[in-house]
Amino acid sequence: MALKTAEQYLDSIRARSLRVFYRGERMASVVDHPVAWPAANCLAEVYRAALAPDSAALLAPEVGGERVNASNLLWRTRDDLIDRVRWERLIGRATGRGALRSPGLDAINALAVVTQRCDRERGTSYHERLLAFVARAQREDLALSGAMTDVRGDRSRRPAAQADPDLFLRVVARERGGVVLRGAKAHQTSAVHCHEHLVLPMTCGPDERDWAIACAVPSDAPGITHVYARQPSDSRRAEGRPLDTGLPDFGGCESLMMFDDVWVPDERVFLCGEAEYTQELVRLFGSFHRFCYGGCKVGIADVVIGAASLIARANGVRERSAVESKLTEMMHLNETMYACALAAALEGRMTAAGTCIPDIALANVTKLNVTRFPFEIARLAADLAGGAMLTLPSQADLEHPEIGPAVRKYMAGAAATDSGERMALFRLLEFLTHGAGAVYFLHESLHGAGAPEAMRNLLRRELPLDAHEAAARRLMARTQPAG
Amino acid sequence: MALKTAEQYLDSIRARSLRVFYRGERMASVVDHPVAWPAANCLAEVYRAALAPDSAALLAPEVGGERVNASNLLWRTRDDLIDRVRWERLIGRATGRGALRSPGLDAINALAVVTQRCDRERGTSYHERLLAFVARAQREDLALSGAMTDVRGDRSRRPAAQADPDLFLRVVARERGGVVLRGAKAHQTSAVHCHEHLVLPMTCGPDERDWAIACAVPSDAPGITHVYARQPSDSRRAEGRPLDTGLPDFGGCESLMMFDDVWVPDERVFLCGEAEYTQELVRLFGSFHRFCYGGCKVGIADVVIGAASLIARANGVRERSAVESKLTEMMHLNETMYACALAAALEGRMTAAGTCIPDIALANVTKLNVTRFPFEIARLAADLAGGAMLTLPSQADLEHPEIGPAVRKYMAGAAATDSGERMALFRLLEFLTHGAGAVYFLHESLHGAGAPEAMRNLLRRELPLDAHEAAARRLMARTQPAG
Amino acid sequence: MALKTAEQYLDSIRARSLRVFYRGERMASVVDHPVAWPAANCLAEVYRAALAPDSAALLAPEVGGERVNASNLLWRTRDDLIDRVRWERLIGRATGRGALRSPGLDAINALAVVTQRCDRERGTSYHERLLAFVARAQREDLALSGAMTDVRGDRSRRPAAQADPDLFLRVVARERGGVVLRGAKAHQTSAVHCHEHLVLPMTCGPDERDWAIACAVPSDAPGITHVYARQPSDSRRAEGRPLDTGLPDFGGCESLMMFDDVWVPDERVFLCGEAEYTQELVRLFGSFHRFCYGGCKVGIADVVIGAASLIARANGVRERSAVESKLTEMMHLNETMYACALAAALEGRMTAAGTCIPDIALANVTKLNVTRFPFEIARLAADLAGGAMLTLPSQADLEHPEIGPAVRKYMAGAAATDSGERMALFRLLEFLTHGAGAVYFLHESLHGAGAPEAMRNLLRRELPLDAHEAAARRLMARTQPAG
Amino acid sequence: MALKTAEQYLDSIRARSLRVFYRGERMASVVDHPVAWPAANCLAEVYRAALAPDSAALLAPEVGGERVNASNLLWRTRDDLIDRVRWERLIGRATGRGALRSPGLDAINALAVVTQRCDRERGTSYHERLLAFVARAQREDLALSGAMTDVRGDRSRRPAAQADPDLFLRVVARERGGVVLRGAKAHQTSAVHCHEHLVLPMTCGPDERDWAIACAVPSDAPGITHVYARQPSDSRRAEGRPLDTGLPDFGGCESLMMFDDVWVPDERVFLCGEAEYTQELVRLFGSFHRFCYGGCKVGIADVVIGAASLIARANGVRERSAVESKLTEMMHLNETMYACALAAALEGRMTAAGTCIPDIALANVTKLNVTRFPFEIARLAADLAGGAMLTLPSQADLEHPEIGPAVRKYMAGAAATDSGERMALFRLLEFLTHGAGAVYFLHESLHGAGAPEAMRNLLRRELPLDAHEAAARRLMARTQPAG
Repeated sequence: MALKTAEQYLDSIRARSLRVFYRGERMASVVDHPVAWPAANCLAEVYRAALAPDSAALLAPEVGGERVNASNLLWRTRDDLIDRVRWERLIGRATGRGALRSPGLDAINALAVVTQRCDRERGTSYHERLLAFVARAQREDLALSGAMTDVRGDRSRRPAAQADPDLFLRVVARERGGVVLRGAKAHQTSAVHCHEHLVLPMTCGPDERDWAIACAVPSDAPGITHVYARQPSDSRRAEGRPLDTGLPDFGGCESLMMFDDVWVPDERVFLCGEAEYTQELVRLFGSFHRFCYGGCKVGIADVVIGAASLIARANGVRERSAVESKLTEMMHLNETMYACALAAALEGRMTAAGTCIPDIALANVTKLNVTRFPFEIARLAADLAGGAMLTLPSQADLEHPEIGPAVRKYMAGAAATDSGERMALFRLLEFLTHGAGAVYFLHESLHGAGAPEAMRNLLRRELPLDAHEAAARRLMARTQPAG
Repeated sequence: MALKTAEQYLDSIRARSLRVFYRGERMASVVDHPVAWPAANCLAEVYRAALAPDSAALLAPEVGGERVNASNLLWRTRDDLIDRVRWERLIGRATGRGALRSPGLDAINALAVVTQRCDRERGTSYHERLLAFVARAQREDLALSGAMTDVRGDRSRRPAAQADPDLFLRVVARERGGVVLRGAKAHQTSAVHCHEHLVLPMTCGPDERDWAIACAVPSDAPGITHVYARQPSDSRRAEGRPLDTGLPDFGGCESLMMFDDVWVPDERVFLCGEAEYTQELVRLFGSFHRFCYGGCKVGIADVVIGAASLIARANGVRERSAVESKLTEMMHLNETMYACALAAALEGRMTAAGTCIPDIALANVTKLNVTRFPFEIARLAADLAGGAMLTLPSQADLEHPEIGPAVRKYMAGAAATDSGERMALFRLLEFLTHGAGAVYFLHESLHGAGAPEAMRNLLRRELPLDAHEAAARRLMARTQPAG
Repeated sequence: MALKTAEQYLDSIRARSLRVFYRGERMASVVDHPVAWPAANCLAEVYRAALAPDSAALLAPEVGGERVNASNLLWRTRDDLIDRVRWERLIGRATGRGALRSPGLDAINALAVVTQRCDRERGTSYHERLLAFVARAQREDLALSGAMTDVRGDRSRRPAAQADPDLFLRVVARERGGVVLRGAKAHQTSAVHCHEHLVLPMTCGPDERDWAIACAVPSDAPGITHVYARQPSDSRRAEGRPLDTGLPDFGGCESLMMFDDVWVPDERVFLCGEAEYTQELVRLFGSFHRFCYGGCKVGIADVVIGAASLIARANGVRERSAVESKLTEMMHLNETMYACALAAALEGRMTAAGTCIPDIALANVTKLNVTRFPFEIARLAADLAGGAMLTLPSQADLEHPEIGPAVRKYMAGAAATDSGERMALFRLLEFLTHGAGAVYFLHESLHGAGAPEAMRNLLRRELPLDAHEAAARRLMARTQPAG
Repeated sequence: MALKTAEQYLDSIRARSLRVFYRGERMASVVDHPVAWPAANCLAEVYRAALAPDSAALLAPEVGGERVNASNLLWRTRDDLIDRVRWERLIGRATGRGALRSPGLDAINALAVVTQRCDRERGTSYHERLLAFVARAQREDLALSGAMTDVRGDRSRRPAAQADPDLFLRVVARERGGVVLRGAKAHQTSAVHCHEHLVLPMTCGPDERDWAIACAVPSDAPGITHVYARQPSDSRRAEGRPLDTGLPDFGGCESLMMFDDVWVPDERVFLCGEAEYTQELVRLFGSFHRFCYGGCKVGIADVVIGAASLIARANGVRERSAVESKLTEMMHLNETMYACALAAALEGRMTAAGTCIPDIALANVTKLNVTRFPFEIARLAADLAGGAMLTLPSQADLEHPEIGPAVRKYMAGAAATDSGERMALFRLLEFLTHGAGAVYFLHESLHGAGAPEAMRNLLRRELPLDAHEAAARRLMARTQPAG
């Protein structure tokens, strides 16, 4: 049976004993630690949705007669791509965070294209290995991470030019039918909650073969250590008062994943030394992931917009024209992002590997808008929320025997609004725009899958101006060159 | 045979003797007058493209075994809608102006939905009449206009409340098996170059039955008079020096079309007095037309971007990072508009009339972006062009025996750029952003198919916030209401 | 002696025993509590700067032969206003937070104008009382708060129309030569660190005399309770690891200040029942405070820009043209805000009270820009910072005996950058844009001294269009009206 | 007697017989030609205003006991600078075009600083010559142009590297106690209406001494030829129907001014070969001129805003909240530009030459805003105007015996609006945003005194980030470097 239940998934992660540090201490369980639980539960939601009647059609497509989670699907048609945009939005909206198995999804699809090409051109057999890995991942419903971003030290220097060669993850030895990895991957989304890491290289020069390594590593492989990132207001999770957290059930997490001489057997290696394929791998993985932001960030924005609208109701001003105008603007910006992702899917194309991939230019257009619009949506939400969003008393104050009644009295809004509910709305919006959720709605929108300059550089290459120039030339007046 | 050649089309218009005034004088021929010719030729391009091998597939779909011009098609599937976005861009790019039969296309598709519903609900037989009209238009390859916008006088008042009831076009009499119309339609795109006008009402209240009139009127019906609008730099067309016009071959035109008691027989009437259907007709016609701007304005922007890029080359600075950055931004904005239109097509849906229509919300999202981005694209183009775009000598100066050589000497750019060509590029960009072309790239982008507030109002209705609010409610912390 | 040292100030606050709750517990000391200390110290900085040789000229003007803190000055000339912009920036830049005695400054200046006018028109003697109060505040160098914003319940309703009349602070009794106040003031900046509160009314209708109350209340008056607001990541202050706080030395705080039948003697009352003066009081207080944001938020932005620049250095990419371009844009936006405030000062005018006040329209223009530009500056800073700003390990991880060396190794940047310093820069920027500092740089920029709509409404009234319309009329072509 | 009347000025220009070509023909009179007249009259307005009672105080300051036109003033104090911002706005608002003697004003003030420094450092005597020239210009109330912008050919190359050395104006011979100039200056504002040209160099390298030439040249010096630039809709001026021109009384003009071996005597030379001073001259001239845009473009925007407001009235929708909101935004943007210029004046500083100059950074901040905000103001004005602005019948149609009454009937607006007046408002706004006036409100705002990149480059140098970085360093957490 292919699909895991959420509980089976959570138990499978509990069963792994990863080495994860948070605030200087070993985390006993990445599932049950109060700070990590919402992120674990958010990943679990992707399992839950695949089995839920109203989302299974999107989240659990049939592959060869079996349902597999859409997060582990090699895309076959444009419809798979279009569906992806839809389910990313659905999960983003359901969690306020997003579908946490997506980096792995982009990794297998990027590798599918590149390994097929490498095999064809170089006689390697990476593609077959990858297909076998994907088949197992589908069968066992594994959560995969996509581990590309190196820590990079001096950003102006290539891997081989760094003061410390480990600042890009690399092969330090080849032994026992495998390779040994050293280095670190930064900002690893949900890596502590995954079964397997798909390690991908960044762009390497021809002389940087040791850094050109792609492979799959089990998350409990010896030698891996995570440093679990702090997030704004993270410790509120541990205080035991859900109101103050804003969004108690879901969240995300990143870690700095360090590889201290991790051994990987050859059958899990998908690229090793073929440096000339790394640029294409980066281009595809980055673009695929950028594309999905037009679904998942749109889903988060749905929640932001909804919360702002509810606060306006609670404040008694929902019908004012200035309020309506701002809500409309937020919707407009949000649907624009969504439209871009849909169009990238619609303009998708088949590859030589037999997979279907989104339009690269439109994928980057999508993400470039995502680096901008959520910030304006958040600003407008804060505008609608008013000052109280960031000057709010705590749940303990609200429930305090002595001052609680006064807090409740003075936090009142328009009729029929409970003060506690009004406070919960403020905290939800605070979470999404200034708390741990802002890591995803704002900062990841900016930097996830690459910074804005990466999109611009790629658009420059993907959208050649020749045709535009020819169009202008055809229309301009003919003049006689000087005789 | 269905498809006319461009020459057949032009001759058919020449054969009509319309009453058109321009600058206080009767225009002898709306085809051969130097000011009107580029607009006539632009409409002819839509005929040309339907027969051209490389565009026929898009522009001349097969309907019932016959090729018909896509401008007269009742959309059958999403693919028809997707194709429409593509051919609108193609024509926009080929002409710097756009596909001038599009308002008629939107009119027949809006009428198709509304007449079917009216017939069903009210027992009328408008739909059949419309289908017969469309069949003839397809068969004879007629150019149709869509005549909706009334002059409206005091914009804060409904039709019946105007000081002069004719400020919205209305039925002033019912006689001889038909109706008599009086009033005027403003900003009529290419109306002088069409065979038939599809007259459509604006939104009417229940007591405004006389204004609720939709029908088809031959362009040479007695009683119609056009006042041909002036455009920036229009008279350069008559000076005989193409360089100064910027874009000599194509253009557009609008007219104020006045109906002085024009009689229309019943079989050409598609709505008459059913005021309650006018709002839906406005909603559909407006939204269909807004949708197409994500194709045609994108095509014009292609030319603007291409011209700006060529000028940067002519100035020797094409490779500067600030230049590349601006060109990339222009491309990004442009592709965003295109993506929105594609998504509106992709999200299209079938109607009870058996036609397929674009998603109304996304159609309006598309247009709301079109009310903004072309202005920024034009600003960036002007930035790249430099001051000379608006301080340029004339063609007569360039060719002047005495000063011509000096003008040529000092208008020189980077090596291999002819001074005359460089001037032609400036003039092309001037045309598109400050000349007659700006009517279309900027002003029509703002107001065509409705002003920005129309989109905002419609989005407010089409995108209800309930689902967003529910999503927020599901995620916020649960609190105990006060006991 | 007029000027207190910072230590004298802090001791004077320690000596007061205010009733302040934070997270459900009474705060023993608002100075020494780890969460409150940075805000206390920030207010102390205003005392420090008045005695520091290089800032005393700005911060400690001479009044009647004595130096007084500029925070307690009734402005005499435009130079006082210009100086204010300068010292607000200086303190904002020195603390990353701002000059916390400013609301009190705006309160006394607004009251000076309004009390003088009320006395003149109504024969009251408020102005004299106010001057006596100000003289004492100057002499004793008291920190004053400005307490205007009521909690307001249903924002669409006036004070008297609220379900609970206490949702706007009001006089509930007149007794013992004074008045008794009940209600609550929201978002009270640094109120727990002030000696006196200047209580101000919001706009009241003619029938809302009980709510039209302005007065001075000692911060330790019986009946006042504060609920100290939570801020993003506030509890990091208590963890004892300064790196994780980002900005260990300074901060701000707000509280919900509740008045449970607080008695105020008549000689401290500056308006009581004269409802018709409340609108002007709101207009002036709001505008004065908006004006100062063009100094203090600019100072914070200086720090944001500086931190972003240092991170770009630490990442080795400071010289890239895209980086330089973004830093320049940030500077440009920042100096625009500053310029607006300077211009508001320059266009200041003398009042009948003998004071000088900034131009009201330009003060609001300043603030309307402040509701926008810091968000864009923050977005650009986040763009430059990269992903690590929000996925950073903690100080405990960096110093951990086991994993610390690896953390240090992988957090390395460009040569000559210490990993710990690089992390401190990320944390500083996180604090300012996503942590407790974002309350001030972003949210207070939006809502402090009123939401954007308040500025727009005021600009509508302050900038009548008559002169603009007349200018257009003079230039348009003359036409002959219809005969 | 110092001040000329407007008539005296116009006669003095009529008396000069300049060699000016327009559309391939010699212009008989640059004053009385219908296309040139509005520009001549606009320059005359600066003479008129200096004698008009209500503007003389601003426009005609007293210098040494005599009134001189402010356009020829060496600034003495900040008040001169502040006044300049005010009178620039006044003239911009009065003409819809601007104060056309301003480039000359900036030229003499830039030369004053640079010649003084050159004399001091190099023992030249340029400053004295300049002062004598300025004294005569004041005494005779001469209109001066500032002629800096060379045609530049390949923009990526310095003067000496051009294929044709004349693409930057240069000294081709030194003879008869003077120098001989060859080359061309582009975009010369009002040069054909000035008495004297102040020729200024662009930045020269140390080896480009021949191009490092500053001097004064009488406008009727032998060898000068102008090619008068075409502007959008320029020929409407000659049609004799003022309604179609939009703004019949005022306008501007540029010319390409070609120097065919023009001799200049030494006493009129202010820099010759001292290439190392050219950069400073460009920096000052450019910045002074950028500064003034915060007055003059603001004045034009006043007219744009006023016209948009009047059109909204004529359309009956002036009181709608969306209309008010847009007008407020336009005002806000406009006052922001104004505030920047005022601040640049306020922050002015005295020079070693005894003159006072605006703050260079803020002058560039001002202009960078001017490269953006007028475009948004124009877009909002077009939004408010509606479609008719660019689809309007002509004056001849309105007055036509046959169709005139119908045109008048259908161009009706809200009650009490004459149709002709409504059309005049549309034409005024068309002129300012899409006609000849757009050259100034939009294109000159972008490129006048340098393109946006020039401002950005200059801001980069003028606003060093050191202090910002130091501020960030002071606040960040201290960490222990690795031991």
